Amino acid sequence: MINVAVLGYGTVGSGVVEVINTNNELINKRVGDTVKIKYVLDLRDFPGDVVENILVKDYDVIVNDPEVSIIAEAMGGIDFPYECAKKAIAAGKSYCTSNKELVAKHGPELIKLAKENNVNFLFEASVGGGIPVIRPINESLTPDDIVEVVGILNGTTNYILSKMAKEGSDFDTVLKRAQDLGYAERNPEADVEGYDACRKIAILSSLATGKYVNFEDIKTEGITKITDVDFKYANLLGLSVKLFGRFKKVDGKYFAMVSPVMIDKTHPLYSVEDVKNGILVRGNMVGDVMFYGSGAGKLPTASAVVSDIVEAARAIGRNINIIMSDEKLELSDISEFESRFFVRVKNADKDAIESVFGDVEIINLGEIDDEVGFITRSMTEKAFAEAESKFDNVITRIRIM
Amino acid sequence: MINVAVLGYGTVGSGVVEVINTNNELINKRVGDTVKIKYVLDLRDFPGDVVENILVKDYDVIVNDPEVSIIAEAMGGIDFPYECAKKAIAAGKSYCTSNKELVAKHGPELIKLAKENNVNFLFEASVGGGIPVIRPINESLTPDDIVEVVGILNGTTNYILSKMAKEGSDFDTVLKRAQDLGYAERNPEADVEGYDACRKIAILSSLATGKYVNFEDIKTEGITKITDVDFKYANLLGLSVKLFGRFKKVDGKYFAMVSPVMIDKTHPLYSVEDVKNGILVRGNMVGDVMFYGSGAGKLPTASAVVSDIVEAARAIGRNINIIMSDEKLELSDISEFESRFFVRVKNADKDAIESVFGDVEIINLGEIDDEVGFITRSMTEKAFAEAESKFDNVITRIRIM
Repeated sequence: MINVAVLGYGTVGSGVVEVINTNNELINKRVGDTVKIKYVLDLRDFPGDVVENILVKDYDVIVNDPEVSIIAEAMGGIDFPYECAKKAIAAGKSYCTSNKELVAKHGPELIKLAKENNVNFLFEASVGGGIPVIRPINESLTPDDIVEVVGILNGTTNYILSKMAKEGSDFDTVLKRAQDLGYAERNPEADVEGYDACRKIAILSSLATGKYVNFEDIKTEGITKITDVDFKYANLLGLSVKLFGRFKKVDGKYFAMVSPVMIDKTHPLYSVEDVKNGILVRGNMVGDVMFYGSGAGKLPTASAVVSDIVEAARAIGRNINIIMSDEKLELSDISEFESRFFVRVKNADKDAIESVFGDVEIINLGEIDDEVGFITRSMTEKAFAEAESKFDNVITRIRIM
Repeated sequence: MINVAVLGYGTVGSGVVEVINTNNELINKRVGDTVKIKYVLDLRDFPGDVVENILVKDYDVIVNDPEVSIIAEAMGGIDFPYECAKKAIAAGKSYCTSNKELVAKHGPELIKLAKENNVNFLFEASVGGGIPVIRPINESLTPDDIVEVVGILNGTTNYILSKMAKEGSDFDTVLKRAQDLGYAERNPEADVEGYDACRKIAILSSLATGKYVNFEDIKTEGITKITDVDFKYANLLGLSVKLFGRFKKVDGKYFAMVSPVMIDKTHPLYSVEDVKNGILVRGNMVGDVMFYGSGAGKLPTASAVVSDIVEAARAIGRNINIIMSDEKLELSDISEFESRFFVRVKNADKDAIESVFGDVEIINLGEIDDEVGFITRSMTEKAFAEAESKFDNVITRIRIM
């Protein structure tokens, strides 16, 4: 018998209970033992719910119960989950979490503590919802030097961008609808400003390099400045606009960034639409591999948490080697990172543009006569900023991959 | 020190040596020990090659060396690899293979033997080349009842179909070119008749259900009957033709099949082009997840073999639980399986077609005036065969998903 406690009975926490109850027989067979949910921690009451009789309000009841060997957390926030994780690990229990803030901030320390205590700190659900990506990087792509990771890591922004592309609507209209449908929070900042994607690419970069990439070091741009007019150009060019979390190793330097990026239809992430997520990983031996699926949602995310519970249950008494040390990885100055840029500029003619950017093809939407668009050659962020500063009428610029 | 022997120094075997040599430091760090290739088995000599001094021609040298703990096989064939695997496991060594014929035929027995001997039989490279898919199914999708697997599992046929779609060329022309480029064998039967995809979907079906799906029970159709005219209809309909290995659980019944299938652009496998592979797995909790990458090629496939070596090295003294028993899974009669069908028929009018198939939309290519195409409603293989038999002039039919 493997006794599990679930912290938080919100969307994901209740999903964890549902997954374990629904596929109980199958999960027990795969674990080789009986998995039982002994406690659910939540401050609320749930009269009539299946967990009614196993609800507790005091974490100490769980952490002091020697019968509990695995704790699955789906609470959100940082300080309390961090305390819970440390206490659980110190008490010889494995800790599985969907909490990306916790992993991005304290992952390396908790991984180290778990190793010292011969238990496990697992976090498959923290990136890509139900998509297996943390474990494949840690346990499958082991022969490879991971030189690049590109991901659509946030379902809310991908939904918004997909709808803007299809419907020609503006950002505010689609955001409002996403909020009404429950795809976006009332306070959408963490999603639309790219903060969520930033934490996720920080976690993936840390796994890729085996060192700690601090999310606070990653240049992060959201999608709030993307307009319906940008999509008119994108459609004309056959491009799609996605919010990418990117990590790239170039000549021994490491770069990471979150920003909107335009891609064409040959890119493997081109057809990742709506709330789906996709993560492309490039290894120096295996080439490109891509993982795709539901990046959020109750049952997909819960499935990923339960996959950690199953792995922790199979590994009781043994630490699974996750190589993500607390040694910090120094990211290179993003101003040296190279991209091509799509640029929209007001009241500028081809000669003025080409005197700064060199030969470009001018894109004219037709319906708007006081602006033009163009695509630059590949140039560093710094060189682009210098060139851009020579115009006082740049409307927007979006990187192109 | 972990001593490894590589059986076969062909494309994949030499790739294994190259991957280990190139990423040596990184692999050792991830294993937590030094991985050393002690022997390469091949009947040929390779004067001047890096393996010149570790070549052996007698397998007994390897299997009788107590220092060797992991054997990686990339030979092809069945009988000799099967003997090698049994001897290795009996001698307490783990066996990692890219050999799909071996896994499809003897996988459950070798998994069982490995368990009894507390070693491992691993086969990530047997399906999907470099794409992590075996381990994600076995170790990540553990909370899920896997109800469907759909895969583009053969790079050669996907290359041929992609080129036919893009260029309008006929099958023989593209096959010839694929052979000249080394993408297809001189004897292309195993690929173009679907036999290779059949073994791979058998392996995935076995993993999905935990029982043994015999590849010989799987109805298998290749792509040799697909013509350039079929692609004219496909293009008109916005569809793509792919060779799919399929496994599906429907109302407690299990179906498996290999056949060409038409899909539209909303299908996650639509944009898997050329020699790439893609595998879509549907779980009852996680929904659809998709894995994409290089389905063949020296270094991608070798990377997957080395990922097994790393896993076996990390697990020395411990069996990794792979749930694929030797209990046979009875597949249901494929005649009960339902699809829609695209049909081309010669010299038949709408009334004659609709009297048999019900209301259909007639598709007229224009340039060919003695035939029409149409798409049926969803019907069983049996019902379709009965309906089709009422016409003596059906040119072709392709299933639609």
